Amino acid sequence: MSADLETRLRALGARRYHNLHPFHRMLHAGECSKGQVQAWALNRYYYQSMVPLKDASLIGRCEDVALRREWRKRLEDHDGDDTRPGGIERWLRLTDGLGLDREMVVSTRMLLPATRFAVQAYLHFVRERSMLEAVASCLTELFSPQIISERMSGMLAHYDFITPDIMAYFDQRPPQAERDAQFALDWVTRHARTAEQQQRVVDTLAFKCDVLWSMLDALHYAYVTPGLIPPGAFVPDV
Amino acid sequence: MSADLETRLRALGARRYHNLHPFHRMLHAGECSKGQVQAWALNRYYYQSMVPLKDASLIGRCEDVALRREWRKRLEDHDGDDTRPGGIERWLRLTDGLGLDREMVVSTRMLLPATRFAVQAYLHFVRERSMLEAVASCLTELFSPQIISERMSGMLAHYDFITPDIMAYFDQRPPQAERDAQFALDWVTRHARTAEQQQRVVDTLAFKCDVLWSMLDALHYAYVTPGLIPPGAFVPDV
Repeated sequence: MSADLETRLRALGARRYHNLHPFHRMLHAGECSKGQVQAWALNRYYYQSMVPLKDASLIGRCEDVALRREWRKRLEDHDGDDTRPGGIERWLRLTDGLGLDREMVVSTRMLLPATRFAVQAYLHFVRERSMLEAVASCLTELFSPQIISERMSGMLAHYDFITPDIMAYFDQRPPQAERDAQFALDWVTRHARTAEQQQRVVDTLAFKCDVLWSMLDALHYAYVTPGLIPPGAFVPDV
Repeated sequence: MSADLETRLRALGARRYHNLHPFHRMLHAGECSKGQVQAWALNRYYYQSMVPLKDASLIGRCEDVALRREWRKRLEDHDGDDTRPGGIERWLRLTDGLGLDREMVVSTRMLLPATRFAVQAYLHFVRERSMLEAVASCLTELFSPQIISERMSGMLAHYDFITPDIMAYFDQRPPQAERDAQFALDWVTRHARTAEQQQRVVDTLAFKCDVLWSMLDALHYAYVTPGLIPPGAFVPDV
């Protein structure tokens, strides 16, 4: 029954993870302009910046000390500590390296509205749904080491404005994501015992794939085709 | 203006902190039976066990990475890590040492209802009020190093069933509480700029003193005078 669940999750990811999105393919194949890469990094920053709030919200509802302790590693990875920059800080090196003003990035005022809504939907999901669904919502990490390695090699090969230095974020994420995804998969496998619970885990992964996919839809619409940037959103000058 | 705020907070603590409660005085003066000490430790366990949920809930609403990082230390202190037991585990050594069944303690099923309601009111306060009030709600820690040292010396001196070993919780808390209280006091002093905001900080401390005070009221009523234990709550056999 539990092998079944993993098979179903992996099959869903193979159909719905955002590595299949046309914007992702463009980005990795070197077909984006610098402005399009900037728009991607700017909007994705908001997702990164909200991840610790999502994780702390889960911890803040969790009565299992072992699960809280395990989940705290995610806070450490994203927020860093006195000696080690976290994922958010490393993402800002990417936006810095792309020539975006850091104050503008951090203010999030030039996001696409759809980015904000999708990320907030994720945050509300983790705050409001069952603990099983809150944990399961991170299972897109099962597929992220692959997308990150595609991203690294593709972007470094194709864009002269991308250097290993500013891609530091992606160096450290794959082992963290792998550890976290494995933990979450084991946890949901142990806790989703009934068919109904297993269906909820699958539905959660579909929801989370939708979050990531819709962020790329919005980027594609605004910055590629038809290229209609919503009022107030970032306008590339390159 | 800010010196004023600290003065007001300290004056309020001097009138309303739970070290003034008759149950606290009994506990420290060696006037409690072992059963009364057990009831206190059992009920207070629930407060300890909910502290990380309260702190993570604050982090989960906080968009300031520096504040999140600082606040994460509290999670580490209470939940511990792979090498170091946290405050909750150390509290369980106290309840173990007092002869309480650990499964019963952790289940929280024999709490006084008023304990549960008071602690949950604190949790909801931190989840729902402004960030200023959420931070300010920990300011009772300004007064806790004093109560802890009274508790340590009083309880060790007066009860033959209390040993330094089972009081390990109290060894480590004072420096943590001092660090945390100083940080929170500085933070609210910087962020409570208007008279109205400062009043909200003072009101928050009053609320938090009420939480702690009402927990001792319930213990005093159930286990001292009139000694009417609510149905379902812990009944000492010593």
